[in-house]
Amino acid sequence: MKRNIELEEAQALLLHDACPAGEERVSLALAADRVLSLNITAPADLPSFDKSPLDGYALRAADTVRAKEASPSILEVIEEVAAGYAAAKKVLQGTAIKVMTGAPIPEGADVVIRFEDVIRIGNIIQLTVPLKSGSNIIRTGEDVKTGETIAKKGALIAPALSGLFAALGCAEIPVFKRLKVAIASTGDELVDVSQPMGPGKIYNSNLYSLVAACSRMGVQVEVLGNVVDQVAAVAEKIDQGLQLADMVITTGGVSVGDYDAVPAALESIGAEILFRGVNIKPGSPAIAARKDGKFILCLSGNPAAALITFELIAVPLLKKMMGLSSYLPVKTQAVFNDDFIKPSPQRRFLRGHFHLGDEMNFVTLTGGQSNGMLQSMVNCNVLVDVPGGSGKLLKGQKVKVMIIDDINGR
Amino acid sequence: MKRNIELEEAQALLLHDACPAGEERVSLALAADRVLSLNITAPADLPSFDKSPLDGYALRAADTVRAKEASPSILEVIEEVAAGYAAAKKVLQGTAIKVMTGAPIPEGADVVIRFEDVIRIGNIIQLTVPLKSGSNIIRTGEDVKTGETIAKKGALIAPALSGLFAALGCAEIPVFKRLKVAIASTGDELVDVSQPMGPGKIYNSNLYSLVAACSRMGVQVEVLGNVVDQVAAVAEKIDQGLQLADMVITTGGVSVGDYDAVPAALESIGAEILFRGVNIKPGSPAIAARKDGKFILCLSGNPAAALITFELIAVPLLKKMMGLSSYLPVKTQAVFNDDFIKPSPQRRFLRGHFHLGDEMNFVTLTGGQSNGMLQSMVNCNVLVDVPGGSGKLLKGQKVKVMIIDDINGR
Repeated sequence: MKRNIELEEAQALLLHDACPAGEERVSLALAADRVLSLNITAPADLPSFDKSPLDGYALRAADTVRAKEASPSILEVIEEVAAGYAAAKKVLQGTAIKVMTGAPIPEGADVVIRFEDVIRIGNIIQLTVPLKSGSNIIRTGEDVKTGETIAKKGALIAPALSGLFAALGCAEIPVFKRLKVAIASTGDELVDVSQPMGPGKIYNSNLYSLVAACSRMGVQVEVLGNVVDQVAAVAEKIDQGLQLADMVITTGGVSVGDYDAVPAALESIGAEILFRGVNIKPGSPAIAARKDGKFILCLSGNPAAALITFELIAVPLLKKMMGLSSYLPVKTQAVFNDDFIKPSPQRRFLRGHFHLGDEMNFVTLTGGQSNGMLQSMVNCNVLVDVPGGSGKLLKGQKVKVMIIDDINGR
Repeated sequence: MKRNIELEEAQALLLHDACPAGEERVSLALAADRVLSLNITAPADLPSFDKSPLDGYALRAADTVRAKEASPSILEVIEEVAAGYAAAKKVLQGTAIKVMTGAPIPEGADVVIRFEDVIRIGNIIQLTVPLKSGSNIIRTGEDVKTGETIAKKGALIAPALSGLFAALGCAEIPVFKRLKVAIASTGDELVDVSQPMGPGKIYNSNLYSLVAACSRMGVQVEVLGNVVDQVAAVAEKIDQGLQLADMVITTGGVSVGDYDAVPAALESIGAEILFRGVNIKPGSPAIAARKDGKFILCLSGNPAAALITFELIAVPLLKKMMGLSSYLPVKTQAVFNDDFIKPSPQRRFLRGHFHLGDEMNFVTLTGGQSNGMLQSMVNCNVLVDVPGGSGKLLKGQKVKVMIIDDINGR
């Protein structure tokens, strides 16, 4: 067991052995926001035939080489083709076929001229300028060529990718199985929001925030609820979670206090403890363990600490287990828009709100930074990564941030 | 009816009359990612009692004023309190109560000292330095004060906000009703991905991309499927959508071609056309109409044009109807990381990928920019807003962008 390791070592230890639960094929309509389990190559060209980008006439450029204002080229319109249909006739010398947007280019034609650019009288059209062969034709495979890799294993299936799969006729999509996580909170002080309050008790907030955070990621959740600070009870809950899910997350009971039942519970079920303690504030008492190949993450019970370590330690693991190819927190820099005068002997993560700027990006603290304070998590979309041994942070200095929620300005 | 209006006028016309379908109260567990329909004020202080942030001893600072290394203050430990319980006794002169992290501060105590900082022998603790009254106590209301506004009407209920509601005992949350949108695609050329292909046909991609995009936003979707280019059929489909949902979105059939059935269909059902044509490329033929107070948005059938106008015109409307207080696309600037040599006589939106930079943010084009090209939408997270009348765009110049998807670096 490792003790008080660096965050990056904790992440690496977990990620090293993390893998998705399996693969399945789902119909395209159910594949939205799932994670691709294979590279996808295009089974066809897109578009699959030459087509017209506009409403006009398909004809032979050769028939227009001598077209002038004074002596227009004159062509007979022999057919009309809407999108969705193929022309019955060919375009031969002296003829044209009317084509609507999206209609296939009829055989024999090599150019399309738009409606507005010809004079039509009865079945005759007049053209007054020569046309360039190939103009106004969308070519087969112009968007995607057969065999081209259109999406890679580990990609999230975003709306446009669903559309692209549809356009290419991919009716079934290989995706990683949905990840299932069991979540429990430990602590004699915890009361569910639906239950009556009592002296010394608090409402359990971690369960609600972590269940919501997992669900938002597309992870299925088994809600195990609250459990008292007793080794046997905690052990039973963790074992139950291991039966029901691919992974277990608990909050509370991880310190070194007399009532912190989690370490002993992990020992009693024979879990291998991977690390105990991470050198960050808040959230330093986090524990990671493994049993039967499944991970158990035990986070601090302090609400903000629980959420912050969830983002820093659990989310990368969950993402890798979901099959996502990109799973580490994205880091960037921003200009600090506050003063934070407390020194940071230990590496500290401050809750901040990231603002995109036209010239530079800013980060503003979202409020009180104590372990237990929850309100400052509400608008927190980045964590300011303050190295251990730092003194005051002053307004205007560049700081490192890790992105934990939308920075899209919502 | 207005024709070929500016994007911002189109947005304003729709947003002016847009409002949520109604409100409801849901249990906290079901409120995640819903939209608040009322401001929420804290019903209690958080924390609701003074508590210990650590495992230690609660005592009276007055008992330690003369404490020194040579003559320690000596106190009797009279009780032990775990988190979740209240002390039975009071701290009187010469006594201390052992408190665990999160336990209420016993009556009479005004300071907590951590375990490691005292010498304990039997029931006696020795302190060698005077303590400052108030140290190591988390104060009632330190995080949230009763009556404080903790979240505003129109806020998305993010995971931390779910947690904060739980912590404050908010078991039922007022939210806007889920928005329901009906989506149909028009076009004789369209075939569903599950159906056999035929000459001149294409697979319908818009339905899949738009259904996925709406679902991702938390909008419920009625999938109306494909409909042929016939006025009566399109009219019936739109009317069906209006029965089933709060709003209808269609793609295709909006141009001025002979087979474009949507304008006549809107007329035939007696819908009021709000505008026809928006001065942007791609997607200029978009139409908005209203019937029985419900909006009907009819977008271009070209896949990229459909998605781009969905983002620029439909999304702000959907967001406002969901009740979100922030609904317009977020704009920022970035350094253009490509050359785009085509001039833009008309205002044009280019598909780009936004990169956060330590010094400045960049945007790179995602591929071909033709109306029908879909592949370049797949990694598109911003649209570069190119003003009408622009010449070439060159690498290194600043451009305006609108954010349409995560720019978090995923």
